Amino acid sequence: MAGVPAEFSLIYRHFRPLAGPGALDLRDDAAVFAPPPGRELVIAADAMVAGVHFLPDDPPETIGRKLLRVNLSDLAAMGAVPLGYLMTTAFPKGIDDSWVARFAEGLALDQAEFGVVLLGGDTVSTPGPMTLSLTIVGHVAPGRALRRNGARVGDGVWVSGTIGDGAFGLRAIRGQVPDADGFLAARYRLPQPRVALGQALVGVAHAAMDVSDGLMQDFAHICRESGVGGVIEAARVPLSPATRAAAVGEHALLPFHGGDDYELIFTAPDDGAVAALGMAATRIGRVVDPGQGVRLLAESGAEIDLPAKGWSHF
Amino acid sequence: MAGVPAEFSLIYRHFRPLAGPGALDLRDDAAVFAPPPGRELVIAADAMVAGVHFLPDDPPETIGRKLLRVNLSDLAAMGAVPLGYLMTTAFPKGIDDSWVARFAEGLALDQAEFGVVLLGGDTVSTPGPMTLSLTIVGHVAPGRALRRNGARVGDGVWVSGTIGDGAFGLRAIRGQVPDADGFLAARYRLPQPRVALGQALVGVAHAAMDVSDGLMQDFAHICRESGVGGVIEAARVPLSPATRAAAVGEHALLPFHGGDDYELIFTAPDDGAVAALGMAATRIGRVVDPGQGVRLLAESGAEIDLPAKGWSHF
Repeated sequence: MAGVPAEFSLIYRHFRPLAGPGALDLRDDAAVFAPPPGRELVIAADAMVAGVHFLPDDPPETIGRKLLRVNLSDLAAMGAVPLGYLMTTAFPKGIDDSWVARFAEGLALDQAEFGVVLLGGDTVSTPGPMTLSLTIVGHVAPGRALRRNGARVGDGVWVSGTIGDGAFGLRAIRGQVPDADGFLAARYRLPQPRVALGQALVGVAHAAMDVSDGLMQDFAHICRESGVGGVIEAARVPLSPATRAAAVGEHALLPFHGGDDYELIFTAPDDGAVAALGMAATRIGRVVDPGQGVRLLAESGAEIDLPAKGWSHF
Repeated sequence: MAGVPAEFSLIYRHFRPLAGPGALDLRDDAAVFAPPPGRELVIAADAMVAGVHFLPDDPPETIGRKLLRVNLSDLAAMGAVPLGYLMTTAFPKGIDDSWVARFAEGLALDQAEFGVVLLGGDTVSTPGPMTLSLTIVGHVAPGRALRRNGARVGDGVWVSGTIGDGAFGLRAIRGQVPDADGFLAARYRLPQPRVALGQALVGVAHAAMDVSDGLMQDFAHICRESGVGGVIEAARVPLSPATRAAAVGEHALLPFHGGDDYELIFTAPDDGAVAALGMAATRIGRVVDPGQGVRLLAESGAEIDLPAKGWSHF
């Protein structure tokens, strides 16, 4: 392989072991694979930029895993079964070989955990910050994908896991809140995509999405797409002990708008059917008629106002 | 949609009209689509960085189109029928709305030309250079995708179109070679993916790939993957008049290693079958036994040595 710069042949060496059968060993122009017969494909893409979506000195193992998990979370939100992924990496010139090795090791761990394989991609160099993009491919029974637009008045509103840890984790890494045992930082660096829950919710939930941009903001997306209103009771939103300790003073409202949770928020007509799944989910509110808007309520019943926040997915 | 920064809501406004049916109007976490029954999926991804793969002051219309075409060229190399694409964009903060509008207009033109739709993606901001990634999805009859590893001793070696224009186009834009009518610059900015030729080559070609990293380098990939040797006759390589005029002095060998052609190189056992396709392709060499290596020959029969060059796809 004359003329191949060392850095790229090394990258290639690190990534080839991640490749699945359809990837043709990363030797061709594209991957070829047969989708499961009779299934619909579900496909999503997310990008991350060093200094914006992860910290340049985050452990390399977690950076690849976070990228993969953020995308798996999109599949979870649709109730899809993960299949594989393509990844493009824009690495700074002269990137350290051991950095790439650790990045790939992290991906290998998550490939085993979530049952996905690398299907292809592209590695380029950049004079700017490391920029990563991942496209995830999964499948679902025809017409059964969970959508954002199915919420109906009377549905309960539920979330998985705990909310707010990702936002506090970022602040913990920056030294802005305490995090003695590193729980919050770990939740920021390694979100837990709710893939099994998403699949179990097919036929149970009316609407679902993942909480990436902030609980109320994402709930508002469901309400807008469904043409309904909604109420979240702040006291019911599940918080980890670490987040409960951190959510004081200026940070008191962060769990409700902070982002980076990668939990699922969903609406369902039948509380018992959700409970029967035996999965960690908490009912936090209800879907109401559209005239009531989308509101976060204190225990007193008073509406809580949140600061405005960005929103970047399309 | 309170709290949405203007720049992203505008991007969303520009991209939504590009969305196909499976994109769910870009309103959900992922796209859902049914692949054509009984077909295999072909999927590839390529990234481009401003200042590396395109010039920051290139016309915005051509940047999106080049990104799409580079990916379509990967599908062409596999003989696949294009279906749709996902795109992630890392735009510098405060990007001009009219820039994004023109970028999207270019994509719309090529969507119509090549019959593809936007399926989804992600828009983020970056403190660094604009970085774009695109994943293309197509399909092919089971087991019929063109591969790099099928070349056999005795095959003819063919290329589509003309070779070298892309590399000279980049130099023309930089003012290093003359380009009075802008032909070379246009070939650099808007390569022509050979999608129809690729599909026609299924069952005719033994091996194929697209020429993106330089003619001899990419031909060497085919030879290595196929376990064969190969000979290219320099005098037979088709050059445009503009490239022929520019390929003198220090630039004399650029067509053979320059890259950015996005033409197809393929091997086929039957010259008549290729000719019968009625498509623009030129026979430039032959596949030989592996002991003979991969060589570029002058009319005298002497071997021509090329400068080493990078290689970045995985």
